[in-house]
Amino acid sequence: MSVSSVPYQGKFISLEGGEGAGKTTSRAYISAFLRQYGITVLETREPGGTEVSEAIRLLLLNTHLPPMQVDTELLLMFAARNEHLQRKIIPALQAGVWVICDRFTDATYAYQGDGRGLSQQRIAALETWVQGSLRPDYTFLFDLEVAVGMQRVKSRSQQLGDQMDRFEQENLAFFERIRAGYLKRAQQYPDQYRVIDAGQDVAQVQQQLAEILQTIILDGSTE
Amino acid sequence: MSVSSVPYQGKFISLEGGEGAGKTTSRAYISAFLRQYGITVLETREPGGTEVSEAIRLLLLNTHLPPMQVDTELLLMFAARNEHLQRKIIPALQAGVWVICDRFTDATYAYQGDGRGLSQQRIAALETWVQGSLRPDYTFLFDLEVAVGMQRVKSRSQQLGDQMDRFEQENLAFFERIRAGYLKRAQQYPDQYRVIDAGQDVAQVQQQLAEILQTIILDGSTE
Repeated sequence: MSVSSVPYQGKFISLEGGEGAGKTTSRAYISAFLRQYGITVLETREPGGTEVSEAIRLLLLNTHLPPMQVDTELLLMFAARNEHLQRKIIPALQAGVWVICDRFTDATYAYQGDGRGLSQQRIAALETWVQGSLRPDYTFLFDLEVAVGMQRVKSRSQQLGDQMDRFEQENLAFFERIRAGYLKRAQQYPDQYRVIDAGQDVAQVQQQLAEILQTIILDGSTE
Repeated sequence: MSVSSVPYQGKFISLEGGEGAGKTTSRAYISAFLRQYGITVLETREPGGTEVSEAIRLLLLNTHLPPMQVDTELLLMFAARNEHLQRKIIPALQAGVWVICDRFTDATYAYQGDGRGLSQQRIAALETWVQGSLRPDYTFLFDLEVAVGMQRVKSRSQQLGDQMDRFEQENLAFFERIRAGYLKRAQQYPDQYRVIDAGQDVAQVQQQLAEILQTIILDGSTE
């Protein structure tokens, strides 16, 4: 195992939530906020921009392939995650950098577990296999009513002329299960989770983020 | 779990061994032999010819990508294996077909475990995650001195003008560890393993295979 159980100097913050919850905008705000305090920040998202993990991502999003077994999809996701962790996230944390990651393993529990019905125990087995005891220090859950989020995605998609990928083509009930799954995990892991009301306007979301981040920075400086 | 613990009607035979041990030639002989007894045979090899698993295989053999983390390689192999199992091997066994598979999970123990030093326990965790209790009924190990095998591969490669792939570019000590690993597993699992002396000439190898296959067919008919 190359995953150390010694706490890292940098903090690992993952951003989670359904479609259209504003994670990308918030990620830029969070990074800028932390940098004001002299903190070095790495912004990343799965699959993390390593060549191998990007190649795996292309496989996962390839709509020309026949549908995969859900277990196959899960193994591929953790393969990409392993590259991302070993090549980018862990080296950054070890160097004292704070890592802001747009989606991580909690998304797997929500999308593949609650969304597609894969057992939480089987996801947990792969999580431990790949990560050892490494978990995000904090998970910011951008919670939003599904209908609102889908409307946002829809107008964005029309604006950009994007072809919606496989995940965004799924139906409403699927996203409702995902939202419920995230909220359940937030209750189960209150030390890790911070729930952001993503239905607020941007200024209000940023105010809430600022308060959370200030607490986290203070906690970190007194440890 | 879609892997049943009920025994299948068909037999699952995997063929294992180092480079140049003659598995491909022997596979054709084994299939022809079984068909003489009225047995329906599926010849296959990892990654099994499903579109998804072939796409994963291209990733694994892609020498233009930077070297992967060994754990990533392992997750990708089991992803391809899962497609192969669920789409081809298990449906065949359920239909009473005998499956002759050129390499299976025992190759992972030998190549990634003994060859690259990954822990046997970590491989076993993924094996159980993907396969449940499913294991080959029989594993034919084509055992050969490494130097002889490499010489065979070398002349074949020059004949065909092939670029040797990543696995065949490895060094002698690596293949010695693999051979020792296979032989150790053959001792650990004597009910599953049949060791073939692949240093013999083709007629002798086929004679040995014929005797083994006759015993297996008799065993199957009296169960």
